[in-house]
Amino acid sequence: MANGKPDVSFIGLGAMGFGMATNLVKQGYKVTGFDVWLPTLERFKAAGGSTGTTPAEAVAGKDFCVCMVATAQQAQAVLVDGENPALPALPKGAALLLCSTVPCAYVQSLEKQLAELGRGDIRLIDAPVSGGAARAADGTLSIMAGASDDAIEAGRFLLQEMSDPKKLYIVKGGVGAGSNMKMCHQVLAANQILAASEGLGFASHLGLDLHAASQAILKSEAWAWMFENRLPRMLDPEFKPVASALTIILKDTSIITSEARRAGFPTPMASTAEQVYFAGLGRGYGPDDDSSLIRLYTEGKGKIGPVQGAASADAAKLSLVIALLKGIYLCSAAEALAFAHRCRLDLDQVFDLCINAAGGSAPLQDVGPDIIRFLRGEPLPATAGGEGLGELAQQLQEAVEEAQRLKAPVFLGSEALSLTRFALRLAPPGAGNVSKAAVVRAWGL
Amino acid sequence: MANGKPDVSFIGLGAMGFGMATNLVKQGYKVTGFDVWLPTLERFKAAGGSTGTTPAEAVAGKDFCVCMVATAQQAQAVLVDGENPALPALPKGAALLLCSTVPCAYVQSLEKQLAELGRGDIRLIDAPVSGGAARAADGTLSIMAGASDDAIEAGRFLLQEMSDPKKLYIVKGGVGAGSNMKMCHQVLAANQILAASEGLGFASHLGLDLHAASQAILKSEAWAWMFENRLPRMLDPEFKPVASALTIILKDTSIITSEARRAGFPTPMASTAEQVYFAGLGRGYGPDDDSSLIRLYTEGKGKIGPVQGAASADAAKLSLVIALLKGIYLCSAAEALAFAHRCRLDLDQVFDLCINAAGGSAPLQDVGPDIIRFLRGEPLPATAGGEGLGELAQQLQEAVEEAQRLKAPVFLGSEALSLTRFALRLAPPGAGNVSKAAVVRAWGL
Repeated sequence: MANGKPDVSFIGLGAMGFGMATNLVKQGYKVTGFDVWLPTLERFKAAGGSTGTTPAEAVAGKDFCVCMVATAQQAQAVLVDGENPALPALPKGAALLLCSTVPCAYVQSLEKQLAELGRGDIRLIDAPVSGGAARAADGTLSIMAGASDDAIEAGRFLLQEMSDPKKLYIVKGGVGAGSNMKMCHQVLAANQILAASEGLGFASHLGLDLHAASQAILKSEAWAWMFENRLPRMLDPEFKPVASALTIILKDTSIITSEARRAGFPTPMASTAEQVYFAGLGRGYGPDDDSSLIRLYTEGKGKIGPVQGAASADAAKLSLVIALLKGIYLCSAAEALAFAHRCRLDLDQVFDLCINAAGGSAPLQDVGPDIIRFLRGEPLPATAGGEGLGELAQQLQEAVEEAQRLKAPVFLGSEALSLTRFALRLAPPGAGNVSKAAVVRAWGL
Repeated sequence: MANGKPDVSFIGLGAMGFGMATNLVKQGYKVTGFDVWLPTLERFKAAGGSTGTTPAEAVAGKDFCVCMVATAQQAQAVLVDGENPALPALPKGAALLLCSTVPCAYVQSLEKQLAELGRGDIRLIDAPVSGGAARAADGTLSIMAGASDDAIEAGRFLLQEMSDPKKLYIVKGGVGAGSNMKMCHQVLAANQILAASEGLGFASHLGLDLHAASQAILKSEAWAWMFENRLPRMLDPEFKPVASALTIILKDTSIITSEARRAGFPTPMASTAEQVYFAGLGRGYGPDDDSSLIRLYTEGKGKIGPVQGAASADAAKLSLVIALLKGIYLCSAAEALAFAHRCRLDLDQVFDLCINAAGGSAPLQDVGPDIIRFLRGEPLPATAGGEGLGELAQQLQEAVEEAQRLKAPVFLGSEALSLTRFALRLAPPGAGNVSKAAVVRAWGL
């Protein structure tokens, strides 16, 4: 114990974990770190941390352990299955915060393993984080924590040290609920990271000046956090610096689709994105920044024979890009919220998380509350002359048609158009100007 | 007139048109051909034909004209808009057979133009064909003809000369109905050409011997005409000979998706295929045989880091490939028949056409009749312990999961899984073992 603060062990000192652990050191905690990469341990010592040579050594005698490895497989190895794992060495009643992004199924299986191994005393907190390395080091992450009330109470001070006070979400539903909440946020991330490349790739096929067009997009109804964040790297000829590799978002996307399959729930947008991510991986783009996927959209441009679009003025072309992105973001919002509903999450909490994080978009802000009402079975407000789903589908259709003329792929836009068309066909006869929120019908709801 | 047979003009002497026109020559007709490619005209003369130097010259004085150019744009040019077009030169009351594959919207606009140009006397027959160059030359094509009764009577003998007697379909609904019928057949073609590459690409990622696996697939419930037809070229290291270029099926696919958009109808499978075709076009594969798209599925194999599938025995791997293809073919059958229903086509006729042509597949044969009953609002027979939609979805899901483990893209399989999941969610509560035909609910039906 240092300064009256309990000792903490920290397993996994990668880009995120190193920042989180050193932040705790700065807050006055004695932190003992472990990582398989030895130079990182030296660096951590230089930053004021202690180190262990095995997971068991690092955690021994510390009542609090944070695990921030990259995958469920790694977590299982350092905690249970590997050499000198952490679990048997944890003191009785220790709190174990699993902050890695893992499938709900994994963290729930870990809870079961604890019981089976006679370590039901360990207070497991399912606490994935969001926000990137800078916020990890600042202690201002978003954290979505699910656990028993007892475990939450035990770990709350640590969750608070690592998070922005407005962005610590205690998620009802116990272990697994935190991971589900992160996963639903990542539906937006998975779709919207690719949408950035698809939208700017489409702008390129249209012959727009990409700098001017993207600035206009950021001021439009098609704003999204991911587009704004990826934009500088999409415009960099080498897609540098590598801030988040394709393999990272692909891992999270595969968690979404595999958990969705487990639930018998369709995630057509994320499934489409995953296929394109696999195509990018096959091209060798795995280690590159995910913004570099714009290459999948622009290759062949100008080399595929004569093409002739219908739009000639820049303003008309820009409208098409905005319509494409709006349609994708609306369907992403519907997919994320519908899946959250299926996972029995608190939709107001999910919305609050997403709108203030990397999943944010203007269509989520605009239509999300109505989608939530629809999912709860409440009547939708009349569109009252505002843009309805039919109008949005029409605009999206014009964008997909123009892409077809230009022979440019728009994987997500095409899928979004199919979904809006499904939803319009599922609307009750004579429904008139259907609310955009009704797009969620296409998820079988 | 020769041998009591009327003179015929023939515009468009490409791979299909040349065979069709020389077949008419062999049947004893005096045929005057036109093409923009002069060497073809010389070849046609050598085969016993006559030639004209302009469309107008070729058609002048002939009561029957067959037009077999490649696209609607070309048809519009040779018939109406180009230099010395055919239309003004056609004799009063001439029959004009448009055999090109064009959107319904185009051939209907042509009918309208005839009226507007004061040539409502011309008996336009919308008569797209199917069957390839060999059957064109044999006079054993499939032909789908829509027109007024009067026009059909005038042109019937020519349709009969060019078609197999069992494969001449007179389609109710007038001009446009023939093109719609061809289009609905091409839904199967578009999806199943790509499915061949996706299925064999998946087999490759699984590490199966492709020769043995493909022979087993041909004997399985996942047989399809396209797979059998494309197989030798998929297995050829150079994807030779070029029997049908990517650009050809892409053109037909774009007709499907643009007509579907016009009808407000979703075609998620064909739309997915189209995006992958655009990706192939971007890679420079446009002039290559469409079987070469297997490259989009196999690139990166073995180079993307460690992957580990769940299936180890060849029999288990083969079952996964068969499940993937079955799921894709079922959704293709549903999409084609649902779209045909939307186009108010006679579904028995559509089924008869497709099952005996390049669109044929074991799942279409197996489930097609039940899908038709469902579309007509008739009750479905109980699955009576047979494979239901839930079981098929489960098998398909296992295939998509294995592809995910192998990090192999399965664009169509993933889409088909989303659609079966939609359909299962749309089934009435307590529906039990839902018939596979109920997958069509996912098209909003």
